[in-house]
Amino acid sequence: MTRLYEDDSLVLHTDLYQINMAETYWEDGVHNRKAVFEMYFRKLPFGNGYAVFAGLERAIEYIQQFRFTESDIDYLKNEVGYQDDFLQYLSTLRFTGNIRSMIEGELVFGNEPMLRVEAPLAEAQLVETALLNIMNYQTLIATKASRIKQVVGEETAMEFGTRRAQELDAAIWGTRAAFIGGFNATSNVRAGKMFGIPVAGTHAHSLVQAYKDEYTAFHKYARRHKDCVFLVDTYDTLKSGVPTAIKVAKELGDKINFRGIRLDSGDLAYLSKKARKMLDDAGFTETKIIASNDLDEYTIMNLKAQGAQIDVWGIGTKLITAYDQAALGAVYKLVSIENENGEMVDTIKISGNPEKVSTPGLKRVYRIINKNSKKSEGDYITLEDEEPEKEERIKMFHPVHTYVSKFVTNFEARELHQDIFTNGKLVYENPSLLEMQKYAKENLQLLWEEYTRSLNPEEYPVDLSQKCWDNKMRNIQEVKESIKANRAK
Amino acid sequence: MTRLYEDDSLVLHTDLYQINMAETYWEDGVHNRKAVFEMYFRKLPFGNGYAVFAGLERAIEYIQQFRFTESDIDYLKNEVGYQDDFLQYLSTLRFTGNIRSMIEGELVFGNEPMLRVEAPLAEAQLVETALLNIMNYQTLIATKASRIKQVVGEETAMEFGTRRAQELDAAIWGTRAAFIGGFNATSNVRAGKMFGIPVAGTHAHSLVQAYKDEYTAFHKYARRHKDCVFLVDTYDTLKSGVPTAIKVAKELGDKINFRGIRLDSGDLAYLSKKARKMLDDAGFTETKIIASNDLDEYTIMNLKAQGAQIDVWGIGTKLITAYDQAALGAVYKLVSIENENGEMVDTIKISGNPEKVSTPGLKRVYRIINKNSKKSEGDYITLEDEEPEKEERIKMFHPVHTYVSKFVTNFEARELHQDIFTNGKLVYENPSLLEMQKYAKENLQLLWEEYTRSLNPEEYPVDLSQKCWDNKMRNIQEVKESIKANRAK
Repeated sequence: MTRLYEDDSLVLHTDLYQINMAETYWEDGVHNRKAVFEMYFRKLPFGNGYAVFAGLERAIEYIQQFRFTESDIDYLKNEVGYQDDFLQYLSTLRFTGNIRSMIEGELVFGNEPMLRVEAPLAEAQLVETALLNIMNYQTLIATKASRIKQVVGEETAMEFGTRRAQELDAAIWGTRAAFIGGFNATSNVRAGKMFGIPVAGTHAHSLVQAYKDEYTAFHKYARRHKDCVFLVDTYDTLKSGVPTAIKVAKELGDKINFRGIRLDSGDLAYLSKKARKMLDDAGFTETKIIASNDLDEYTIMNLKAQGAQIDVWGIGTKLITAYDQAALGAVYKLVSIENENGEMVDTIKISGNPEKVSTPGLKRVYRIINKNSKKSEGDYITLEDEEPEKEERIKMFHPVHTYVSKFVTNFEARELHQDIFTNGKLVYENPSLLEMQKYAKENLQLLWEEYTRSLNPEEYPVDLSQKCWDNKMRNIQEVKESIKANRAK
Repeated sequence: MTRLYEDDSLVLHTDLYQINMAETYWEDGVHNRKAVFEMYFRKLPFGNGYAVFAGLERAIEYIQQFRFTESDIDYLKNEVGYQDDFLQYLSTLRFTGNIRSMIEGELVFGNEPMLRVEAPLAEAQLVETALLNIMNYQTLIATKASRIKQVVGEETAMEFGTRRAQELDAAIWGTRAAFIGGFNATSNVRAGKMFGIPVAGTHAHSLVQAYKDEYTAFHKYARRHKDCVFLVDTYDTLKSGVPTAIKVAKELGDKINFRGIRLDSGDLAYLSKKARKMLDDAGFTETKIIASNDLDEYTIMNLKAQGAQIDVWGIGTKLITAYDQAALGAVYKLVSIENENGEMVDTIKISGNPEKVSTPGLKRVYRIINKNSKKSEGDYITLEDEEPEKEERIKMFHPVHTYVSKFVTNFEARELHQDIFTNGKLVYENPSLLEMQKYAKENLQLLWEEYTRSLNPEEYPVDLSQKCWDNKMRNIQEVKESIKANRAK
């Protein structure tokens, strides 16, 4: 896309108000005060019991390349009207802060920081929008993929959604996220090239149409593609497609490996059972049945319940767009800021809706793993200076319904954030995509199954330490008093 | 994104099966036979009465840059395993065909070709996936935006969705599509730079949090931003935010233009009415109220019905992800192909579901505009060689319920496709985005209002000419007979 992206950078991939605020901070001389923002979502998507964190690799690239180009500055000056002094400041700006984050494949839950930016106020502000844009989508799709893969089980799940994805990036990065969530292959060749994801695909209806009849088309296709999968529903699956595939496979015998047939329409339960019988009767018992057509975890579960004879699942639209919930609502909130004396002061955002009140302070997130059961007791959010790993016993309690509590002993407190950037320098190395997928899978083993079922899972505990909870209550009280005092004036 | 996109091209942004088919065609020596594919969707999204076509500019770029790079070829050879002879062919491949298409801002309906590719078979096949990816998303969002804008009316509609968009491209190209659909501005600065869309934005909660109290934050913000819009819901909209905004505006008097307040949470109907009264009582009758928070056409209609005092609407998630229907299902079907004698032969895709049967043949699409009423009588699809513009009277009939018919006289038959590429050469010049927006708006004037209402609109007629319909029936019959004949063998 050279014309439009010439001298383009992603630094303007932000909301205008971020630049407005950066300008205010800069003019007031507070732009370099240290600020801490945390990214988290409030509610898990799809009614799922967990989410799979993804997007970090793309976010890292974005941060590394964060700089205003000449054309960016020109645009801000001539079209938006910012003044030269401020633009001078922007033109040399780089990201110089710290980022701590979960790693891709980590399981993440509502109301816990998945990523934390600790940086000069203006910088931390300017990167908000793009980071949310990346993390919200990739985490959403990794989660959807994990849900689907849990229903698919050990069978193969393939991502087929490019044509229905929300523009090009979504197709590419959504495929990558789906792989982290457990998918095995994709039809998108560019995603294969960029990320090393196995690519898969056979032929489309148009091949059959181009040759007018299936017999000719299958024969032509088989000349080069020795591992044959024939698409059998161009005209009539059972009357034409499957018998023709069998006929061609018999004629070609050992010259090809008749790997499978693909069903892309109609009643997949009925057709797959009939087709299986036809294949078996013809001696092709190893030939697989691949199915696609608006599949998701619900249709797959139902097809399985009906005894559908499907070996490989191609999933498109419903995965790549997260069709039943097309957005994750992660937010990015200021939790602490340096004051005029150089001290860090906690901040809070109050809301009429109690669930939207943010949790102030620099925090850490731990997964509390019971050493006996090897299962997680829940996540535990502390203030920065707490050391739960050194404690013998911790009290875990629900942050809203505080009477719901338990004491945990004999645990491992596994910290979930890693250093990604330190003083603007990348200090983290991305593992391979396969390692991320494996990590997500292993992490699922830490959860009791009541948290991982797709329908009405139990709520996994995400608790605040006593100190963190007390700090939040104190901050709420302070704001309330300050509002009251201001009104009295 | 230099690392991942180094030597990248979009030519691999396709499904693997397209390359498989191209290989089969090439090996069989039929890759250069002329093929005609049409793109269309079957069902309008959101239960809307029309869709707004968008995405052409991006598609044009894609076609212009269609070529396999060295790393693309290396990947196909080493990782996918294609053979050298075929790769040699790919390495010099360019798009050499014709594309005829609707232009952006055109109104499009179900089952009518919005874009037609007429090209050597292999080329036409290879471009399918990316074209669908682009058109499906941008048309979806332009349509959603148009729906929302119809409810917003003459007030301002702003796109605020970047942070919830499905990755970066969706934020950018979705914003552009929203503008075509009638939106007035965006918060995304990069979209502003790339497309010249007006950018808008004020400040976020974090500014207020950074300064601890609204009074200080508003004062600081107003020092540079003379056209002030204050966000008033950080702590308490009516008790703190609005009174503080009024207080600061009074103190600053003529030094600023107190342009508005923004509400981003809570009961927008109640809060906007209360805030309006407070502003009016303080003499700020010209100060606008801007509202956002998960808005879409339904919430906006309800807020208006409740007398909400909102002047400017900021719409994010629900627009940019087309939340209530996150994908448009456009397909790309082979309708005609050159045979071994160099004659064009029509092709059809049969389906168990009658609505999925494709309409064979090279076709043209006309909008039949009644010269008296200046309103459209419906769209009329003919075979390539028909000339409805020269006819005095045409019969329009429902392609399924054929008894629903009418004769139309005194009409203008406006052809909806334009030449975009001819023999691989771009012959079309994109108008400005503003012209596209204007074009969409003018086109809406051609529709009777029963087709444009947001709830349960009437079905706009998309009819086949008698010749086109007869041709379809003949093709269905031929396929049925051919299947029967093959089974008898």
